[in-house]
Amino acid sequence: MIPFSERPYIFINSAMSADGKLSTFERKQVKISGKADFDRVDTLRAGTDAIMVGIGTVLADNPSLTVKSEQRRLERTAAGKEENPIRVIVDSNARTPIDADIFKKGKGRKIIVVSESAQKEKTAALSKMPDTKIIVAGSDRVNLEEMAVLLKKEGINRLMVEGGATLNYGLISVGLVDELMIFVGNLIIGGKTAPTFADGDGFSEGQIRRLTLESAEKIEDGILLTWKMKSE
Amino acid sequence: MIPFSERPYIFINSAMSADGKLSTFERKQVKISGKADFDRVDTLRAGTDAIMVGIGTVLADNPSLTVKSEQRRLERTAAGKEENPIRVIVDSNARTPIDADIFKKGKGRKIIVVSESAQKEKTAALSKMPDTKIIVAGSDRVNLEEMAVLLKKEGINRLMVEGGATLNYGLISVGLVDELMIFVGNLIIGGKTAPTFADGDGFSEGQIRRLTLESAEKIEDGILLTWKMKSE
Ligand SMILES: NC(=O)c1ccc[n+]([C@@H]2O[C@H](COP(=O)([O-])OP(=O)(O)OC[C@H]3O[C@@H](n4cnc5c(N)ncnc54)[C@H](OP(=O)(O)O)[C@@H]3O)[C@@H](O)[C@H]2O)c1
Ligand SMILES: NC(=O)c1ccc[n+]([C@@H]2O[C@H](COP(=O)([O-])OP(=O)(O)OC[C@H]3O[C@@H](n4cnc5c(N)ncnc54)[C@H](OP(=O)(O)O)[C@@H]3O)[C@@H](O)[C@H]2O)c1
Repeated sequence: MIPFSERPYIFINSAMSADGKLSTFERKQVKISGKADFDRVDTLRAGTDAIMVGIGTVLADNPSLTVKSEQRRLERTAAGKEENPIRVIVDSNARTPIDADIFKKGKGRKIIVVSESAQKEKTAALSKMPDTKIIVAGSDRVNLEEMAVLLKKEGINRLMVEGGATLNYGLISVGLVDELMIFVGNLIIGGKTAPTFADGDGFSEGQIRRLTLESAEKIEDGILLTWKMKSE
Repeated sequence: MIPFSERPYIFINSAMSADGKLSTFERKQVKISGKADFDRVDTLRAGTDAIMVGIGTVLADNPSLTVKSEQRRLERTAAGKEENPIRVIVDSNARTPIDADIFKKGKGRKIIVVSESAQKEKTAALSKMPDTKIIVAGSDRVNLEEMAVLLKKEGINRLMVEGGATLNYGLISVGLVDELMIFVGNLIIGGKTAPTFADGDGFSEGQIRRLTLESAEKIEDGILLTWKMKSE
């Protein structure tokens, strides 16, 4: 495991249904939380150095990952920061579309983390996007531990991960996650192929990760569960 | 939807990981809750007329589904009931093994719900097990709505469902569930093929089922969420 001093503090924030799903089996986003929770997430975003998602989420939802409140953006700039945290995409093969909303919406730096096997033309095209840096970590797939060390060197001390299912699992499985904030919404999505909070291969009995429940807070029609990762 | 007066009150009780899983990808049961929660479940069992699981759970876990506390069994018999609630298995093709623990452990009635397509020899063998009744509902697969009406006629007014993933989804999708009790344990199991609280085909956006959060109660290292189904 990467020593804590060499990587950012990493927390995941996600909204899931009461049955653990992030979206429908068609990978279509649904309304899991309401206004109060969106506002909570916006506060979290404004308080971090960077926001990360996997390429699956970019392709499915095309999020902009910006701070929505003008007040919070002003507070950031008043504190000498950029309006928005650095937006980071984990994208082994440089599949991020150059017309993705993270390039169109909001000011601020973007980092695309690719692997060595990403096509040179694709990374070259992405590297030409404004305020965008390419970071290479891993040979075939992004090596998340190498990535974490490199992101720390970019000045990222606090990193917020906003999914999806595969990236959440990947980060947890290599011991890179410190905290989980999971908003459990008042709905059942169902589906054996619908993305869950943590997909990937899954843990066998002996590998299962244990948590400590820090708090449970009712927000509108759902409940926010905050867990800390137990050290192994 | 079957009118409420013609079917039992149906509630699901399950334990899932913080990421919505009922077991590992190998369908291996793991410790999700502790003693206090087992005791809560035992109280729930003692207070119902019947306990139901799907054949998938029988084949994976071979549960006995009995009331564990002697005190609670005595209270049941003192009240003129059998020691254990009726144990019901939803099993279209009569695959329940005749050496399953529900036949070996604990006294009381058993009902195997099969479809018309179950092999005659198999249902005949099961019908010969002590205190066991075969109920036929549906042609290829158990028709859960027909089943619910027939179970009411067996005197079952309060039915507790203990999973698994596919049966939970099936019951919710036909509007047969009134209440969900989900113990969320302090662990991440992960895995895109691991059984979740509700598998099956999954709902599309317009079909998603909405809930009302009734209560959230910390129990040992996890939290019990009780939801009521919103009427459609
Ligand atoms: N409700 C919520 O809070 C929320 C939040 C976010 C997303 N979502 C939903 O989640 C779904 C997307 O989830 P997803 O699982 O498909 O995508 P994802 O987790 O966003 O991205 C996964 C991709 O990241 C890349 N990756 C590179 N290296 C990796 C590594 N070491 N470990 C893990 N991933 C690595 C892989 O693609 P490459 O190999 O091509 O690099 C992988 O397929 C969508 O349906 C979206 O709506 C919901
Ligand atoms: N953590 C917990 O609280 C908990 C509780 C229970 C189970 N589990 C886990 O859940 C897993 C088992 O789940 P599962 O999904 O495989 O099995 P399941 O839900 O127990 O049983 C599903 C089976 O029921 C039968 N069925 C018949 N008619 C149906 C209908 N109309 N709708 C739905 N199902 C119908 C089907 O088999 P046929 O077509 O052959 O009839 C179906 O495959 C195991 O890993 C077990 O450990 C965990």
